[in-house]
Amino acid sequence: MVAIGIDIGGTSFKYGIVSEEGKILFKHSYLVDESITQEEMIENLGRSINDFINEENIDRKDILGIGVGCPGSIDSTKGVCDYSNNLKWKDLNVCKILTEITSLKCLISNDANVACLGEVKFGAGKKYNNAVMLTLGTGVGSGIVIDGKLYEGNQGKGAEIGHEVIRFNGRKCTCGRRGCLEAYASATALIKDTKTAMRKNHDSLMWNYVDGNIKKVDGSTSFECSKKEDKAAKKVVDNYVWYLSQGILNICSVFRPECVILGGGVSNQKEYLVSKIKANLEKDHYGFGIAPKVEVLIAELGNNAGIIGAASLLFSK
Amino acid sequence: MVAIGIDIGGTSFKYGIVSEEGKILFKHSYLVDESITQEEMIENLGRSINDFINEENIDRKDILGIGVGCPGSIDSTKGVCDYSNNLKWKDLNVCKILTEITSLKCLISNDANVACLGEVKFGAGKKYNNAVMLTLGTGVGSGIVIDGKLYEGNQGKGAEIGHEVIRFNGRKCTCGRRGCLEAYASATALIKDTKTAMRKNHDSLMWNYVDGNIKKVDGSTSFECSKKEDKAAKKVVDNYVWYLSQGILNICSVFRPECVILGGGVSNQKEYLVSKIKANLEKDHYGFGIAPKVEVLIAELGNNAGIIGAASLLFSK
Repeated sequence: MVAIGIDIGGTSFKYGIVSEEGKILFKHSYLVDESITQEEMIENLGRSINDFINEENIDRKDILGIGVGCPGSIDSTKGVCDYSNNLKWKDLNVCKILTEITSLKCLISNDANVACLGEVKFGAGKKYNNAVMLTLGTGVGSGIVIDGKLYEGNQGKGAEIGHEVIRFNGRKCTCGRRGCLEAYASATALIKDTKTAMRKNHDSLMWNYVDGNIKKVDGSTSFECSKKEDKAAKKVVDNYVWYLSQGILNICSVFRPECVILGGGVSNQKEYLVSKIKANLEKDHYGFGIAPKVEVLIAELGNNAGIIGAASLLFSK
Repeated sequence: MVAIGIDIGGTSFKYGIVSEEGKILFKHSYLVDESITQEEMIENLGRSINDFINEENIDRKDILGIGVGCPGSIDSTKGVCDYSNNLKWKDLNVCKILTEITSLKCLISNDANVACLGEVKFGAGKKYNNAVMLTLGTGVGSGIVIDGKLYEGNQGKGAEIGHEVIRFNGRKCTCGRRGCLEAYASATALIKDTKTAMRKNHDSLMWNYVDGNIKKVDGSTSFECSKKEDKAAKKVVDNYVWYLSQGILNICSVFRPECVILGGGVSNQKEYLVSKIKANLEKDHYGFGIAPKVEVLIAELGNNAGIIGAASLLFSK
């Protein structure tokens, strides 16, 4: 049996046929036509999938259904995208339209949720049934898997660990609250902190790294220069990792999952990042000694996480 | 069918026969003999339960089993109390001993967990299947119920929301971390803040309330005087409630349960406390508007919460 996984992005739709072993057998993507209505976008997607199934000669009886990973606020029980800022969608009945056109069962969840589910079923967390994933990108996305299944909260409005306050009255977050984890542990926050440190430290190696052009700073600048023992860069990284570690420690206190999986751009720092986090967890761990350790892992599915994760909605572990 | 619920306290053991409707049919309690070993404490408890069953003429076939609510760190999968500070227990095989003596099935969980389960099954949260409870007492205990079942984390070491950091680098917590919710939202923290405010405000009504004796301050002092519009007391209360609200808002972001239930001494402030929390949630709510509101409720089972909650471990919702 196979499932179709759809990765809804801000500019393109990607989809693929995924095997029960989590392998993408065929895939396809196209740029979104922004001139049409939101319903037409999904209708076109459904027709594109029908064509794809015919072209690849797949027997419909072998398809468990369609899984959709979508940014924004999703009500998975109703199959609806309540709101998505990237795509300007509102109250869009994604699953209903896709099922009407393809005659296939359809399940939908938030993109960070399906990424987590995919990692637990087929990626970094496949040894485990209880995991929390943080996606360290523009924001801090998160997914929670309990007993092999997604935990999404009432009407799919939970699992927003990025919007947990870790610093009372702290930095203003995009969500309106102050001191959210996202305001400290996103790549956006890291870049901001890197630039601030550079402006204060004109002799930092970070200036060479970006050819003197502060606009070239990205989530790797401070990390790469920290590895070369640049003092200002090291301070930025240590500060960033300490905040991130507080978020992970909170996850340990609240969920005590078997593992925390890190994805998104910053997770490209792999072992350098993980070793620093682990040192912090040892130092400041609630219940350490009695409580089982929580593994910190780097996501493995990479660019295919969206498609594989979405298809995972159809597979039981 | 009935179940036996045992409420393990620091100085006394209480137990009772609880009906499937959550009513205590018979109960008994006795002071703990601290001169005996931890195993003997449980053996005596088992024998006391055997006597009790015989005295009350209960048919053993009608007893689903024994549920135990115990303070400290519990591994519910193994039926073991790993560690309990109050009772100085360590690696105590509670369920094994009780089953050997009574021939009854035995389940155990942390006291805050079973309180939450009891409230969801028979108390304030009985309309709901997804709830989080905070117990505002000496510390901040917590329980998490998902789909009508306790969520305890790996080896029962999760569900410690009181040890979630909400104020980075904040007050030292008893657990060793800094800025935990417990360090701001426990009755202990409230009492400390009340005394600090009184020392700064010699004309505060709070002094009259405790007959000029600061040692008489308890968790109600600031609340009662805030109700009488004492400025210093109002400031203590508003500050306390704002921290507690941040903890509840984090619960909303992470779990988005149907309700948050408040227990423990501070929850005696009932509607006065709830209305202040609700005002804060409206002001500072992640995803408000799209996300379903989270009800804030006061626990209803009172002194019987321990016995009823423990017995709830045997009842499915």
